Amino acid sequence: MNLADAIRTIPDYPKPGILFRDITTLLGNARAFRRTVDELVQPFAGRKIDKVAGIEARGFILGGAVAHQLSAGFVPIRKKGKLPHTTVGVEYALEYGVDTIEMHVDGVAAGETVLLVDDLIATGGTAVAAVQLLRQAGADVVGAAFVIDLPDLGGADRLRAVGVPLQTLVGFPGH
Amino acid sequence: MNLADAIRTIPDYPKPGILFRDITTLLGNARAFRRTVDELVQPFAGRKIDKVAGIEARGFILGGAVAHQLSAGFVPIRKKGKLPHTTVGVEYALEYGVDTIEMHVDGVAAGETVLLVDDLIATGGTAVAAVQLLRQAGADVVGAAFVIDLPDLGGADRLRAVGVPLQTLVGFPGH
Repeated sequence: MNLADAIRTIPDYPKPGILFRDITTLLGNARAFRRTVDELVQPFAGRKIDKVAGIEARGFILGGAVAHQLSAGFVPIRKKGKLPHTTVGVEYALEYGVDTIEMHVDGVAAGETVLLVDDLIATGGTAVAAVQLLRQAGADVVGAAFVIDLPDLGGADRLRAVGVPLQTLVGFPGH
Repeated sequence: MNLADAIRTIPDYPKPGILFRDITTLLGNARAFRRTVDELVQPFAGRKIDKVAGIEARGFILGGAVAHQLSAGFVPIRKKGKLPHTTVGVEYALEYGVDTIEMHVDGVAAGETVLLVDDLIATGGTAVAAVQLLRQAGADVVGAAFVIDLPDLGGADRLRAVGVPLQTLVGFPGH
């Protein structure tokens, strides 16, 4: 089974000219989903991982499964204003404007080892902000794992440049 | 370990007079998270479950973990306009007005067995709509599992009334 074949491509979504890579077909395939989780954690086998940080919303599905696989805790990283307790946030640049991601102030403890999980890495803006957020709280980000990499957008390189070991499963060059 | 003790209560969120039950403290506790997943699936052990349906957004975290535990596929149920492919939707009543939940038109196949997962059942409006959505697609909803039940709001009774076996782990009477 090729994981790339389990991903559906939707042309012109969310806007004309964009090829949207839809992982719901992969998630709905029990064998592909399990293999995805196995491969996401593979480079980090043998590392003690205290928590998996998942980025809203598709990173919640994958992150929940990865946390279960690793017998780790889970910490949600959400868009601004979605978390009920006191938060810490990091602002990051979008193509036009800025956005903010947040985590609970007690989402991770100083010294905890964390694996960051999301479905896709594109420019890496959100992922690099998430790493900053986790490090500000004193966490040791042992790695980041994504199902899909859009290498032309440079996000994987940006994450490596800030010292985060990376796992990606399917690349779509030229996106 | 008492799972109720792992849930944080936030007074006056999202508005005055509401006690918000925050499961992020439970998710962040590796032992509590794993035990939660074990207990959520316990009544359905021995049933073949093809897919876990998780309701956005906290149901994605729990549903991802439950799908992994059961070696099942996962199908996301989202708020209107969030899914990239062709959707089917069900409208349901809120305290004031209506809302719509959606699933991909090919999210489940006719005859598939599905376990519905979310963090909390209150009035049951969303959960009953989700069951309707899954059944319209021909799925056999074998059960629904929630961490928290607010029994005074009647959602668990409403789900049972439409023939869905229920698992809830922590009740907050009087919410």
